[in-house]
Amino acid sequence: MANCIIAQSGGPTAVINSSVVGLVEANNTLGIFDKVYAGLNGIEGILNGNIIELSSFSQDDINRFRYTPSSGLGSCRYKMKKLEESTEEYDRLLEILKANDIKAFFYVGGNDSMDTTAKLSAYAKETGIDVKFIGIPKTIDNDLMYTDHTPGFGSAAKFIATSVLETYLDSSVYINNGIFILETMGRDTGWLAASAALAKLNGKQVADFIYLPEAAFDVDKFLCDVKNKFEEQNQVYIVVSEGIRTAEGKFVAEAHAQSHDKFGHAQLGGVGAYLKNLIISSGITSRVKSLELGVLQRCAMHCASNIDLEEAYEVGYEALRQASLGKSGYMIGIKRENNAPYKSSYFLIEADKIANNVKYFPTEWINESGNNLKEEALEYLAPLVSEIPDIISASPMPSFKVFNK
Amino acid sequence: MANCIIAQSGGPTAVINSSVVGLVEANNTLGIFDKVYAGLNGIEGILNGNIIELSSFSQDDINRFRYTPSSGLGSCRYKMKKLEESTEEYDRLLEILKANDIKAFFYVGGNDSMDTTAKLSAYAKETGIDVKFIGIPKTIDNDLMYTDHTPGFGSAAKFIATSVLETYLDSSVYINNGIFILETMGRDTGWLAASAALAKLNGKQVADFIYLPEAAFDVDKFLCDVKNKFEEQNQVYIVVSEGIRTAEGKFVAEAHAQSHDKFGHAQLGGVGAYLKNLIISSGITSRVKSLELGVLQRCAMHCASNIDLEEAYEVGYEALRQASLGKSGYMIGIKRENNAPYKSSYFLIEADKIANNVKYFPTEWINESGNNLKEEALEYLAPLVSEIPDIISASPMPSFKVFNK
Repeated sequence: MANCIIAQSGGPTAVINSSVVGLVEANNTLGIFDKVYAGLNGIEGILNGNIIELSSFSQDDINRFRYTPSSGLGSCRYKMKKLEESTEEYDRLLEILKANDIKAFFYVGGNDSMDTTAKLSAYAKETGIDVKFIGIPKTIDNDLMYTDHTPGFGSAAKFIATSVLETYLDSSVYINNGIFILETMGRDTGWLAASAALAKLNGKQVADFIYLPEAAFDVDKFLCDVKNKFEEQNQVYIVVSEGIRTAEGKFVAEAHAQSHDKFGHAQLGGVGAYLKNLIISSGITSRVKSLELGVLQRCAMHCASNIDLEEAYEVGYEALRQASLGKSGYMIGIKRENNAPYKSSYFLIEADKIANNVKYFPTEWINESGNNLKEEALEYLAPLVSEIPDIISASPMPSFKVFNK
Repeated sequence: MANCIIAQSGGPTAVINSSVVGLVEANNTLGIFDKVYAGLNGIEGILNGNIIELSSFSQDDINRFRYTPSSGLGSCRYKMKKLEESTEEYDRLLEILKANDIKAFFYVGGNDSMDTTAKLSAYAKETGIDVKFIGIPKTIDNDLMYTDHTPGFGSAAKFIATSVLETYLDSSVYINNGIFILETMGRDTGWLAASAALAKLNGKQVADFIYLPEAAFDVDKFLCDVKNKFEEQNQVYIVVSEGIRTAEGKFVAEAHAQSHDKFGHAQLGGVGAYLKNLIISSGITSRVKSLELGVLQRCAMHCASNIDLEEAYEVGYEALRQASLGKSGYMIGIKRENNAPYKSSYFLIEADKIANNVKYFPTEWINESGNNLKEEALEYLAPLVSEIPDIISASPMPSFKVFNK
């Protein structure tokens, strides 16, 4: 029997290692390959010969790895040259695979990784080399086309929505409360910020306003909205994506940073801090707090969604199965079969179709004022956020396992 | 039978409502008072007649309230005048209690609340009014004297340590990693920052340096430590308390903010952002991230420590029991009976002794370099951090209940 290899690429998620474990256990069950290798630090590591044998680790290590957040095989942001420019790296990679008798390569990542997967697959076919290349989706941003959603998003959404609810309560305790701004990731798309809509108290959404990159942001309208709401309820809760833009397509945060650059100031943080200063300057109130969730939202295994972990596992499992059927140049997509009870299935989609596309948050799910979401968004989001797995919640402190440390 | 009243004061914690539920259920079991009232927004609310009847709510509401973070009765930062200055507020409060046939007053809070508790108790005794006043400890800062620790701290410690471990993994995925700075709360004491020491991978603490207000902070030594560590391992993880000070006792963050004030700049965030800029300016590396946990660390019920929740419940329970025995002017303290298995008991401590004291992190638990902790700190911290209660982890999104909304 030949061997296979898996590697991770791009920004980490809470569930990216579950996909690796799904693949390892698919091989244990289906018996397709002799050994499952892992490339450390993605394709960059493989090109440097940084390869370990995953299937030699104990089941205990594998079980802990499954519930360890962040890329436990290490990651990279390495982009291979275009085939037309040079085939050198492609040849080198294929040689390394050949030297290890590797007949299938699995890459866990987002758009760029699917680009790499598609190119490698095409080059192998072109040069008559029998290696299968399959992409496994991963990104908290949920911005891959064709797949209903991406593994990693559900857990990020759960952490964001939970944190919104908790910080809303925290910012509501006094007689005179203030304005709270929570900034999420999502430079190009609003999926992460949108998940804040799941935070409800007494059946009512706690976020007064949710701003996404897909709706043009107008500073004057924003201040007017906030002023009116503050006068009405003496408290305002705002969720904002780091990627909100003006009608001209300029990042609101960057527009601000540039206006200060000439003084040589240090950077002022993100758009949340900018909006905070804006509100204070406008005289609405000086009681304004802003909070950036930062990398917490992509690694918070302690608040992971079990459905997300399970689907991450399954796309890994399915990737191995499809490679064994001779497929190459595809990514595993998730199809939503049913919402209540939630049910999904898996399918193949050409990796190059994923590579050059971005799935934006549907503008028809944003209200007319551009400052909140419609019910359709909640119907989409809610089933992806489920319970925290017992193995995580039952432990005083997590016992994580990674292979790159 | 007469009635009793409970109110919350100061900054919220994840477990402050559990103390209220402990008290309500103590009364259900022991049958001491007719009704349990709650003052909304602390003493400020009571003085405005803002009182509800807690014992009239359903058991379902009470159960959900027990696992709801942040002061669900509302809070205040109201300091009563000194008795020598004016007894007007004291008389008004006692009249309100009398009008509602209230014979016991319970105040959940920190130093200031214990000051209020002590003063009210003394004044009632002095004027021959039969109302008992008992304080219930609460603060994430863990800075109350005599009690082994305070309810609220264990859950904050669990969230901080867990976030340290997860963000450490997140910041470790590339071949060339950078420097990560996590800033915790704790303006006067280092208990919160210290809890980062619980974050371990493969049995080894992941934080390279932990800086507390109790050890004088020297910028040059800091940069030297960071530079050496970065050269050694191409990655540094730093935890810093917002309250770190220079040898002269000046807040490091403020020293910085002031140096920029003359230009009229907006505030640059906390000490984490300051240290980040310092490292970049010093040329060690430009790959530096800083993250402020902010209010998340005091309201993260989704990562609460069950032992903390239980103890919060028990101090509420014990407060009612002690009032029924005729005690007044005391706070309920926690005594650690055993570390493994962890066991605690409860005792009375004069509220005025708590009011005018601060419990600092023991300097003998800090290493000689002032940049890390000794084993004794871990022995103290570890038992306070336990599992997440099932009721929280099993729910896709929490169903919280508060009484001030």
